[in-house]
Amino acid sequence: MTIKLHCFGESGNSYKAALPLDLSGLGWEPVKVDFFNGEARGEAYRALNPMGEAPMLVAGDLCLTQSGVIQSWITEQTGQFGGADRAEAREVLRWVLWDNHKLSSQAGTVRFLANFLPEDKRPAGVIPFLQGRLRAAYQVLDAHLAGRDWIVGDGPTNADFSCCGYLYYPEPFGFDRADWPAIDAWLDRIAALPGWQHPYDLMPGHPSDRA
Amino acid sequence: MTIKLHCFGESGNSYKAALPLDLSGLGWEPVKVDFFNGEARGEAYRALNPMGEAPMLVAGDLCLTQSGVIQSWITEQTGQFGGADRAEAREVLRWVLWDNHKLSSQAGTVRFLANFLPEDKRPAGVIPFLQGRLRAAYQVLDAHLAGRDWIVGDGPTNADFSCCGYLYYPEPFGFDRADWPAIDAWLDRIAALPGWQHPYDLMPGHPSDRA
Repeated sequence: MTIKLHCFGESGNSYKAALPLDLSGLGWEPVKVDFFNGEARGEAYRALNPMGEAPMLVAGDLCLTQSGVIQSWITEQTGQFGGADRAEAREVLRWVLWDNHKLSSQAGTVRFLANFLPEDKRPAGVIPFLQGRLRAAYQVLDAHLAGRDWIVGDGPTNADFSCCGYLYYPEPFGFDRADWPAIDAWLDRIAALPGWQHPYDLMPGHPSDRA
Repeated sequence: MTIKLHCFGESGNSYKAALPLDLSGLGWEPVKVDFFNGEARGEAYRALNPMGEAPMLVAGDLCLTQSGVIQSWITEQTGQFGGADRAEAREVLRWVLWDNHKLSSQAGTVRFLANFLPEDKRPAGVIPFLQGRLRAAYQVLDAHLAGRDWIVGDGPTNADFSCCGYLYYPEPFGFDRADWPAIDAWLDRIAALPGWQHPYDLMPGHPSDRA
C-alpha cells in the first residue's frame, strides 16, 4: 500500500508532515497540489478534505489531514518522534499546538502575503502586525532552545518538525536566523539529521515554476 | 489533590479547558489570571509557563498548558470527550488543530482588537483581514455541522469544546450566529449539556470589572 502525501514545496504546513514521513523510513510518494491555481479550494480536493488545505495523506482507505494528525499517525506506525513517555508526549503536543496557534499559522500567512501576492494586493497594515506577533513567538522558541538541543527530550520529535515548518525558506518574511542564535543552531541540528532535505527538495513545486 | 485552572472569563482559550473540566465531573477551582494588568507576561507566571498564556492547569506537581493538552489530560483521567475509537480520536485532534490554526486563534485576536483595545490603538487593516479569514473558517465549520449534531461521532468531544471557545461571547467581532444556522444549532446543543455554563459564569473576570 503506497502512502501518498498531497503537498507542495511552498507549503511549510506540508513540510511538517513530509519531513517526519521521510525521516521515519516509511516509503511515500509526494503528489503535487496545484495550490496557486486553486486546486486545494476546488471541488475534487474538497470532497476529500473539506478544510481545503494541504497536506493530506492517503494510504488505501485512510485519508488524514492536518500535519499534526499525520505526525501522530507516523508515530503510531513507527514509534518514532512522539516523545519517550507520556509526559514527553504531552509536551510534544503542547508545542505542536503552540506552533499551530502562534508560529506556523502566522509565519505562513505573512510569508504568503509578502512574497506570493502582488504588492498592490497586499492588505495594508497586516504584515507588520503579524510580524510583531511572530517576534513574540520567536522569542519564546529561542529562549526555550537556549541550552538544549531539541524542543522536547533528547532527540528530534514532532515538536521540532512542526515548529521548523516555515523557517528554512529563503523568501524574506521578517525572520532572520542571525537574530535568533538558539533557533539558528537548532535548525542546523535538524538539517544534520541523516536524510534531511530542504522543503523545496523534498516536495514538488517551487516559486520558479510560476516565473 | 486540588485541580486548579489558571484562567479568566474573557479568554476563550481558557474556556476550551474549563468547559470539559467542568462537564467531566472532576473537581476543580479557577484561579483568575489578571491578564489585562499583564500577569500572564510577568516573571512569576512565565516561570511556570514561558509561553505566557492562559489556560494553565496545576495539580500537585503537574503543570499543563495549551488547552488541547489539558483536554487530552481530562480524557486520560475520565475516558470522556476523546472519541469512541482511534479513528475518532484522530478526527478530534484534527479539529482541535484546525481550531488552533484557523478559528480560535484568529477569533481571539480580532475580538481583542475590536473590543479590548482603545479605538486609536487598533492596527489599521487588521480587523477586516482577520474577519475575512474567519468567514472562510465559519463556512467550513457550518458545512461540516449541517446534518450532524456533533463535530465528531455521536456525542460531545474536545473538538466541540475547542471550536466553540470564542463563539458564546456577546462582544461583537463579526461573528453573527444568525448567519450560520448549523453552528447556531450546535452552540444551542452544547449549551443544553447538563452543567453547561457561559464563559463569564464559569470563570472569574468580566469586562465590567474594568469599567
